[in-house]
Amino acid sequence: MKSTTRYLTFTIPERMGFRNITSEVAAIVTESGVREGLCLCNAMHITASVFINDDEPGLINDYRKWLEELAPFDASPTRYQHNRTGEANADAHHKRQIMGREVVVAITNGELDFGPWEQIFYGEFDGCREKRVLVKVIGG
Amino acid sequence: MKSTTRYLTFTIPERMGFRNITSEVAAIVTESGVREGLCLCNAMHITASVFINDDEPGLINDYRKWLEELAPFDASPTRYQHNRTGEANADAHHKRQIMGREVVVAITNGELDFGPWEQIFYGEFDGCREKRVLVKVIGG
Amino acid sequence: MKSTTRYLTFTIPERMGFRNITSEVAAIVTESGVREGLCLCNAMHITASVFINDDEPGLINDYRKWLEELAPFDASPTRYQHNRTGEANADAHHKRQIMGREVVVAITNGELDFGPWEQIFYGEFDGCREKRVLVKVIGG
Repeated sequence: MKSTTRYLTFTIPERMGFRNITSEVAAIVTESGVREGLCLCNAMHITASVFINDDEPGLINDYRKWLEELAPFDASPTRYQHNRTGEANADAHHKRQIMGREVVVAITNGELDFGPWEQIFYGEFDGCREKRVLVKVIGG
Repeated sequence: MKSTTRYLTFTIPERMGFRNITSEVAAIVTESGVREGLCLCNAMHITASVFINDDEPGLINDYRKWLEELAPFDASPTRYQHNRTGEANADAHHKRQIMGREVVVAITNGELDFGPWEQIFYGEFDGCREKRVLVKVIGG
Repeated sequence: MKSTTRYLTFTIPERMGFRNITSEVAAIVTESGVREGLCLCNAMHITASVFINDDEPGLINDYRKWLEELAPFDASPTRYQHNRTGEANADAHHKRQIMGREVVVAITNGELDFGPWEQIFYGEFDGCREKRVLVKVIGG
């Protein structure tokens, strides 16, 4: 069984932001030499997500608005007990649960086996600092 | 390492609908000959989900109602910017995030290793057209 | 390819409750002898979740409150059709979809490959009875 492990590092220059990381993940799959297997791609931080959806800027704006409705930013310790710790990012821990921590993508014939519109996104909900994404490829 | 890749294709005859695909996935696991491994099962479209829950018609109706409350259908470009592209399915992209893209199921002794009520569902949020689900089995 | 399968069993003494299971999962990874691979950890019941987030009691309380807002407990068959079956746990089936069924964690150099704050939680939404979590390790 072959395996490859890589870490992507980036700083999103906003509190909430989204980045298409498909080409970076695809390059790691190519580098791994795996022809048939699985690719795990996960946020290593608990205020961020990795998810698959459409690379359409209007949709990304819709997600921003919707996540803010479902789990509004509120730095006070009144709405969120977590903010009694001195943090102001409780909302980010909630937004991440909606969008998910990870994706697992099939590798077939040496490539990410995607439907027509699938793109891998990093979703940041507590940005302006360096964060990491893990990409693990296993297979034969 | 063994691997098997199959694609399930179907057209749900409603905008939102659910289909139990457990037996189709189980047949692919049997066909693969894998005794110990993992089975990835994911929607290949970004307005659909694969998830595991109970095959109880009342619950499925509850999910329909709940998803409509969390992310209402609205074809206009006012609520959802995505619909400025000419699409009317922004709500479906949101519903899919709640229910998830994929499941990963353990294979033990050649079978899907399920708890007593676990069933795999395809959830369609923008139906009336052909869609695909990917099933990838890896293991030994 | 090596594989190890273990089942964790516990009874959460409340209807909704959370338990950090990271050390139990890590011990299974060590026992497996897998150096590079994947660890699947999933609830085997459809009214429970396995997810990764921060081990901070205030945040856990925030999740309780938020999940109750998104999918309120209501034993009557009016809000939830599922409760017409004689069950009172429809809300739990909804809460579980928000928090997810499973996590897949990379194993690197024989250990769970975690970011600084990642901890694995079992989330129970219909407790006071025995439930199981499956841990499957595959790799080389």
